[in-house]
Amino acid sequence: MDLITLADVRAAAHLIAPHLPPTPVLALPTLREGLWVKAENLTPVGAFKLRGALNAVAHLPVDARAAGVVTHSSGNHGAALAYAAKAADIPCVVVVPDSAIASKVAAVRRLGAEVLQVPVAERAEQARRVAAERGMTVVPPFDHADVIAGQGTVGVELLEQRPDVAVVLVPVGGGGLASGVATAVKALRPDVRVYGVEPELAGDAAQSLAEGRLVSWPLADTGRTIADGLRTGLSELTFAHLRAHLDGVLTVSEEEIRRATGALIRASRTLVEPSGAVAAAAALSGVAPEGRTVAVVSGGNIEPRLLRELLPE
Amino acid sequence: MDLITLADVRAAAHLIAPHLPPTPVLALPTLREGLWVKAENLTPVGAFKLRGALNAVAHLPVDARAAGVVTHSSGNHGAALAYAAKAADIPCVVVVPDSAIASKVAAVRRLGAEVLQVPVAERAEQARRVAAERGMTVVPPFDHADVIAGQGTVGVELLEQRPDVAVVLVPVGGGGLASGVATAVKALRPDVRVYGVEPELAGDAAQSLAEGRLVSWPLADTGRTIADGLRTGLSELTFAHLRAHLDGVLTVSEEEIRRATGALIRASRTLVEPSGAVAAAAALSGVAPEGRTVAVVSGGNIEPRLLRELLPE
Repeated sequence: MDLITLADVRAAAHLIAPHLPPTPVLALPTLREGLWVKAENLTPVGAFKLRGALNAVAHLPVDARAAGVVTHSSGNHGAALAYAAKAADIPCVVVVPDSAIASKVAAVRRLGAEVLQVPVAERAEQARRVAAERGMTVVPPFDHADVIAGQGTVGVELLEQRPDVAVVLVPVGGGGLASGVATAVKALRPDVRVYGVEPELAGDAAQSLAEGRLVSWPLADTGRTIADGLRTGLSELTFAHLRAHLDGVLTVSEEEIRRATGALIRASRTLVEPSGAVAAAAALSGVAPEGRTVAVVSGGNIEPRLLRELLPE
Repeated sequence: MDLITLADVRAAAHLIAPHLPPTPVLALPTLREGLWVKAENLTPVGAFKLRGALNAVAHLPVDARAAGVVTHSSGNHGAALAYAAKAADIPCVVVVPDSAIASKVAAVRRLGAEVLQVPVAERAEQARRVAAERGMTVVPPFDHADVIAGQGTVGVELLEQRPDVAVVLVPVGGGGLASGVATAVKALRPDVRVYGVEPELAGDAAQSLAEGRLVSWPLADTGRTIADGLRTGLSELTFAHLRAHLDGVLTVSEEEIRRATGALIRASRTLVEPSGAVAAAAALSGVAPEGRTVAVVSGGNIEPRLLRELLPE
């Protein structure tokens, strides 16, 4: 299987630069010395997913551009692709389940995409049908080399911003972000240790790496974690990247995720969704190795109700 | 009266750069096209005040450095000076009123400063006494050329980050931030319009500029605004800067401030305190001139209770 390389990530960085200035790396002096967060929750769509979407759109073949792009996602990838398509001035369809939260649907529409709501079981099929009928290109959320290379730009940026880093922690859901970041960081700085982090309740990547084979967990199990962006399993492509480059995958408990989410919001003064907090949770709970650490905060689209619940007085 | 110049601001930028990377300018695609926020709520102390404090500490005479610095402030300036002193490895005393919120006092202590709690009426006197007894230098929150020059670095940064800006909006309390930003922006880009913004309930700067003389409002009046960082009046020094450089001072209502605070938190995914939201409130309410606008979000230290209250579902 062909893995992406540092050259792919550098090309992605060049392509997305006009649309996305570097996200900041924030210190947390009131929480912990020697821990910084790479604030991917501060992209215009509130998640790192914008990088992969921008890179995938930039790599569309010339004869496929005008027809546009389609995806099925009720989460951050849908909003990211809508934003990237609008920036490129091409059409975008986002297929979401009937059950999608109204505010998220409205946000994707405001970003200029056409939203199709279908029963949850028909999402993938509907996206394929739209692609076939309209000649649109399907852009998947993580199982795609251009998407992985785009997410890898997080790694290039954080090394420039904190060259003194010793440990990089990255959330793992489908594995696109961790694949890209590990590729870039290990190519540029083999001395820096890179760990994936996932919820104990969605520990399929940790098990897969331990057993040396791709293991899938049923959604009935992973659906129990509060980190809703990390319930997805790896693909063969992302598994291959993680196996080649990661120093390991750490897991954190639900209580550690909840506590880290609230603590990060207060200390970084940014909104953090639970999926975005797992990497920092590994540092704060002591399960991650010591040393100067950058934890990637992957997203900030937290529901107001959950924000109220998790915010410490 | 001697005003600071662009050269002072450039020198400040050089001195504070090792301690403070540029804060991001964030787009708000779900709220308003053509409006960006300069996120000063994302400095390590959650407010622009760190810039002035770092610059004042860097400008201490060699023979005064070892003795350290002192100020009286229960707000962002106290935390900023504590942080700046720690970065320079010199002592710092922050005098706060008995009535100061425990969490804010704890935050200043965590940043390494000695905190002295005294009755509110004795704060200034206590700071002067500490300065005399220990040979410490008093660093005031805004009425000081080095502090104003430090705050002006916000203006240099935002022009680099958004060279296409037409309108800059800056909160006005004591006027240090607006003085520095207006000095820098007008020197570099006379075509860009710069407005101060303050609460109607603390509209002393607007009145002062209208009447061409420094007008003070009693704290019994300004104390009514939710924007607690903007209840202070101008000094002769900041008034002179604002008079020389600002295109005007706009005012916003309490309802506009409350609404803008909640909307900004959602759209920027950062915590914003009401004082920090007034500049964006002027853009969102339509009282500011049209055109590509950067609103300075001056701080993000909002109490959790108020955050819950202002956050829209």
